[in-house]
Amino acid sequence: MNDSGRGADMPPGFSDDFRDALDRLFVWRRDVRHFRTDPVDPAVLDRLLATACLAPSVGLSEPWRFVRVEAPARRAAVRADFARCNADALAARTGAEAARYAALKLAGLDRAPHHVAVFCDADPAQGRGLGRRTMPQTTTWSAVMAIHTFWLAATAAGLGVGWVSILDPARVAAILEAEPGWNFLAYLCVGHPETPADSPELERQGWERRNPARRAWIMR
Amino acid sequence: MNDSGRGADMPPGFSDDFRDALDRLFVWRRDVRHFRTDPVDPAVLDRLLATACLAPSVGLSEPWRFVRVEAPARRAAVRADFARCNADALAARTGAEAARYAALKLAGLDRAPHHVAVFCDADPAQGRGLGRRTMPQTTTWSAVMAIHTFWLAATAAGLGVGWVSILDPARVAAILEAEPGWNFLAYLCVGHPETPADSPELERQGWERRNPARRAWIMR
Repeated sequence: MNDSGRGADMPPGFSDDFRDALDRLFVWRRDVRHFRTDPVDPAVLDRLLATACLAPSVGLSEPWRFVRVEAPARRAAVRADFARCNADALAARTGAEAARYAALKLAGLDRAPHHVAVFCDADPAQGRGLGRRTMPQTTTWSAVMAIHTFWLAATAAGLGVGWVSILDPARVAAILEAEPGWNFLAYLCVGHPETPADSPELERQGWERRNPARRAWIMR
Repeated sequence: MNDSGRGADMPPGFSDDFRDALDRLFVWRRDVRHFRTDPVDPAVLDRLLATACLAPSVGLSEPWRFVRVEAPARRAAVRADFARCNADALAARTGAEAARYAALKLAGLDRAPHHVAVFCDADPAQGRGLGRRTMPQTTTWSAVMAIHTFWLAATAAGLGVGWVSILDPARVAAILEAEPGWNFLAYLCVGHPETPADSPELERQGWERRNPARRAWIMR
């Protein structure tokens, strides 16, 4: 997956223009729930999955496992699990908040042309355990950074990604017949976004607002 | 932290040149353990921490908490904890592997001019629980993506970041007097790298190699 020579020659000096565009990438990367149904060029999707594998990993363990789900019956089963889990989440809310929750569209499973399930090999041989003795979750966190790498690269390619977490991990692993030892992390909807946006949909729909307070402190 | 107007005007059309440079960023982003000791421009460090807060978060909960550790006694205590945990990790290995492990330099705590501890508010009020009912770990994973955002932005600024995970999370939280409910995720060394590199140090030192096998499958 690590295309030899790809981007690898001299140490790069990144320009101010690149840094400005990188900031725009972070600003415009969205959790997309509204997709066009036309498919993505297969070569582009393939390349984005290869790019994801450039993510950092603890001990160089590369524990991420990506599964593109094309089987209609399995996709339908995942959609049904989302519907069930989302109904449970709604049932746990009351009054005005329940009404507002019910009005949200929280996944693009209905129209996204591509579905990608992401798993983590929880105890990989590769890396020989380095760096995860006291913090074993760093294996999972490595796979999360691979998802984030995919997300950013997809956004740069003009595509949208939506991370669906309103699912029962054990049920999804069963639906997708995951290998033993693979933990389910994420179910990604991938495709062309209907409308690019520079603000979160949850903010536009009045569910929550970004907090402008600083999240960084100095301990002198 | 979300600078108004920053990068936010028209929907960006990212160019081929930008995508190529983004690939180079992913290729050259390293876990750095060898730093120069000269400090980073405070305005740059501040801006990188603001950029980190553009990361995705479940339910828009923004659960990341960054703490720049400048207090010498606390830094020394963290270094001592690393030394203890690393000695334990070495003691668990035998023979040739122990010798090879002992030869690795696994953290830049000795020379990095800046130390940033990252915590996650495990049960944030912000976001009102959306999206994390069946997968509560998505809160932690949001903070991991903020760390990764910081890492990429720092690399684009010519800086190096090293994520130290060979630490006892409870001890580090105590050393840094973390707020109740904050979980320790990462201790980052930040500064100018001695030598940029496009391959992992663990690979150059013969500990582990990237696996060229595909990590993506199609389920038809």
